[in-house]
Amino acid sequence: MPRRGVCSRAVTQHTLSVLVENKPGVLSRVAGMFTRRGYNIDSLAVSPTEDEHRSRMTITVDASRFPVEQITKQLDKLVNVIKVRDLDPENMVARELGLFKVSTSGTSRSDILALVDIFKGEIVDVTSESMIIQATGTTAELENLEELLRGSGLVEMVRTGVVALGRGGKTT
Amino acid sequence: MPRRGVCSRAVTQHTLSVLVENKPGVLSRVAGMFTRRGYNIDSLAVSPTEDEHRSRMTITVDASRFPVEQITKQLDKLVNVIKVRDLDPENMVARELGLFKVSTSGTSRSDILALVDIFKGEIVDVTSESMIIQATGTTAELENLEELLRGSGLVEMVRTGVVALGRGGKTT
Repeated sequence: MPRRGVCSRAVTQHTLSVLVENKPGVLSRVAGMFTRRGYNIDSLAVSPTEDEHRSRMTITVDASRFPVEQITKQLDKLVNVIKVRDLDPENMVARELGLFKVSTSGTSRSDILALVDIFKGEIVDVTSESMIIQATGTTAELENLEELLRGSGLVEMVRTGVVALGRGGKTT
Repeated sequence: MPRRGVCSRAVTQHTLSVLVENKPGVLSRVAGMFTRRGYNIDSLAVSPTEDEHRSRMTITVDASRFPVEQITKQLDKLVNVIKVRDLDPENMVARELGLFKVSTSGTSRSDILALVDIFKGEIVDVTSESMIIQATGTTAELENLEELLRGSGLVEMVRTGVVALGRGGKTT
């Protein structure tokens, strides 16, 4: 299987929750480690946490291709990385958000609306030529919706990548 | 104002939609450019696009502190970066997703449920000690919800960071 760059669609995904100090250069160090070691990131989301001095990175990697224990160890060694957790898929909540722009010229709006309804999505914008659909769910659900929208005039899309929290107590 | 590292909460945010080739090292190059130049990223989301050979990075930066034209120019020069667009806030749809874990020991569940209802959120997990709330909206809406949950037993949270599409035709 070829290395597919920054984003790929993996079947066996591990979700890493990485708590980092909010310092310049930390993202660069994390990304650099993945590049140097040749590990491929499937998705990455970085944003503030409940503590303004810390950020949380949620990184998904394909575990069938890369040794996850080694990745977590390498991450743990980096400067400004506070804690790394490989979330247990059986004991976490993982979601992502997607925005899908579909052309309304060739396809009937009612077909698209039916899909939006099934996926509990929301129409967040309409112009004369296109609509933007917002949907949330697991990666599998969003990929399923994407596949269906490809047949209904998908023009472009953007997804956040997965974010996740462990169930029960504190994740990191 | 001190540099606050990888994530901060900016008032004047620009949203950059960066289309990149799905090649190893591109995230590292983008992150490295920000670090070297001392630009601060407020949030970053990377995930697949409608074309499997390309990924889209959505990066938000504080325009009051950094020259956005210069950032877009520098990004445009990087290897494997296909197109950079500084999205017009008046003409885009920008959303993010947050997961918020709240302790249910000290707070009444009905108070939390009322908040979830107002923000059109969803309870996606419940244990004896905590609940996880999923919410979507603009950054301002999620920050508003976060503030309110801080008073209602917020234990931890993770956010995806913003993703955005321009209205009408193709964004990038």
